[in-house]
Amino acid sequence: MTDATGSEAGTAWRRIADELEAAIGRGDYQEGATLPSSLALAERYGVHRHTVRQAFRHLADRGLVTVSRGRGTQVTAPRFPYRIGRRVSMRTNFGAAGISVAGSMLGAEIVAGEAEACAALRLEEGAPLWQVEALSLAGGIPVSTGVHLLPVARFPEFDRVFVESGSSITAAFKACGIPDYVRLSTRLSARIASEREALLLKIEPGAAVMVSKAVDALPDLTPIHLIDGIFAGERMEMVVEPFGELPSPPAGESGA
Amino acid sequence: MTDATGSEAGTAWRRIADELEAAIGRGDYQEGATLPSSLALAERYGVHRHTVRQAFRHLADRGLVTVSRGRGTQVTAPRFPYRIGRRVSMRTNFGAAGISVAGSMLGAEIVAGEAEACAALRLEEGAPLWQVEALSLAGGIPVSTGVHLLPVARFPEFDRVFVESGSSITAAFKACGIPDYVRLSTRLSARIASEREALLLKIEPGAAVMVSKAVDALPDLTPIHLIDGIFAGERMEMVVEPFGELPSPPAGESGA
Repeated sequence: MTDATGSEAGTAWRRIADELEAAIGRGDYQEGATLPSSLALAERYGVHRHTVRQAFRHLADRGLVTVSRGRGTQVTAPRFPYRIGRRVSMRTNFGAAGISVAGSMLGAEIVAGEAEACAALRLEEGAPLWQVEALSLAGGIPVSTGVHLLPVARFPEFDRVFVESGSSITAAFKACGIPDYVRLSTRLSARIASEREALLLKIEPGAAVMVSKAVDALPDLTPIHLIDGIFAGERMEMVVEPFGELPSPPAGESGA
Repeated sequence: MTDATGSEAGTAWRRIADELEAAIGRGDYQEGATLPSSLALAERYGVHRHTVRQAFRHLADRGLVTVSRGRGTQVTAPRFPYRIGRRVSMRTNFGAAGISVAGSMLGAEIVAGEAEACAALRLEEGAPLWQVEALSLAGGIPVSTGVHLLPVARFPEFDRVFVESGSSITAAFKACGIPDYVRLSTRLSARIASEREALLLKIEPGAAVMVSKAVDALPDLTPIHLIDGIFAGERMEMVVEPFGELPSPPAGESGA
């Protein structure tokens, strides 16, 4: 049961895809650059446009290009790897790559905790929680936005401390006497960005976002922090490596 | 720096959202059901449509409803939790919930492995690899599709064995003398489904998918299997719990 890919058309799209991939690898087309149109490439290779589109689809399936209606076929910028391990900190993740992280608090209020949130934080329903909305930028580009829920009893002045800590959760926790914390749980799914999220993250309306529902805890596993976060799907890649970091093949070695 | 949410409008959208949430919790609106229009609710509550839309957005941000242009506001079906731990198997994930998994092989061919794939599998570039495309269904609903890459040297007749194993990777590995395997790495991001993916997964064109690039290995951590998978974002939720499974609050307890 082997596919028939030895046909003329099969060979042609593959050759076009391979040549485009090599050109991207060489940097002939930089990140974000638009590839020649399917019409132009069809003329250059003497094939039907359908064959070029098949090559585009192959490259898109491999994440090398992004095909969008009206904008043509663009070279995908590599997604930033964001490690979800026993400790998760945005500044650690980006800092390791020498990328500066900045954050801002969009709003903070004290709410009566809903049943589900209070259960996750092991509190009585209705316990007062900080509900803090924040935006995070890495290298000046918005990468995530989200709502943080924290017990007011443990963090009586979280709004002030968070702002004074430069909107860093890790720094705010330290200022509140919590030198270390762990990531208990992360639940990831995908959906289309809301209009507000697209505006905040500066992504196209209708773009895909990763939805992250996470729980941070003290080192003794007492949950203290819930995060409902939204990550720009085109900019980030969550990495889960339960046996530790893998040696990754050197970048840019796949072409030519 | 506390938000002003005690205003008339602030109270109104919150009350509408709370009542709708309670109604969803009671089952007045079942999964997939369409809520009354913003116009109808605005009349019922004697508020501006904008206030109702704010309530919808709040419920959407919490994942309870899905707002789509033209289709109105629908109750979100809960996403199926898919655990990404040291072992990841679709049948184990769904089987634990009593959901049957079926798979089908869409195609299989032997290809000369590209540099990146061969590096990940610790093979010489160009080593022959099985490239197997498959579709997985859970409870009769398509949940993922993807391309599997496996060394031909280790799996000489993988296409036949995979089909004979009912398109189960775990069963096919067993039949090839590999009784156990581990998940070395999973990289998750989000993007818009391609037309073909939308057709295969029976999701709306333009819907968000989770993209998973994963590496399976022998228990001694020798990589043997690469998976480029696509999961329907609206149906699945990847769960990462490095300290083990959390006690989850009982379902349906958040309403009333």
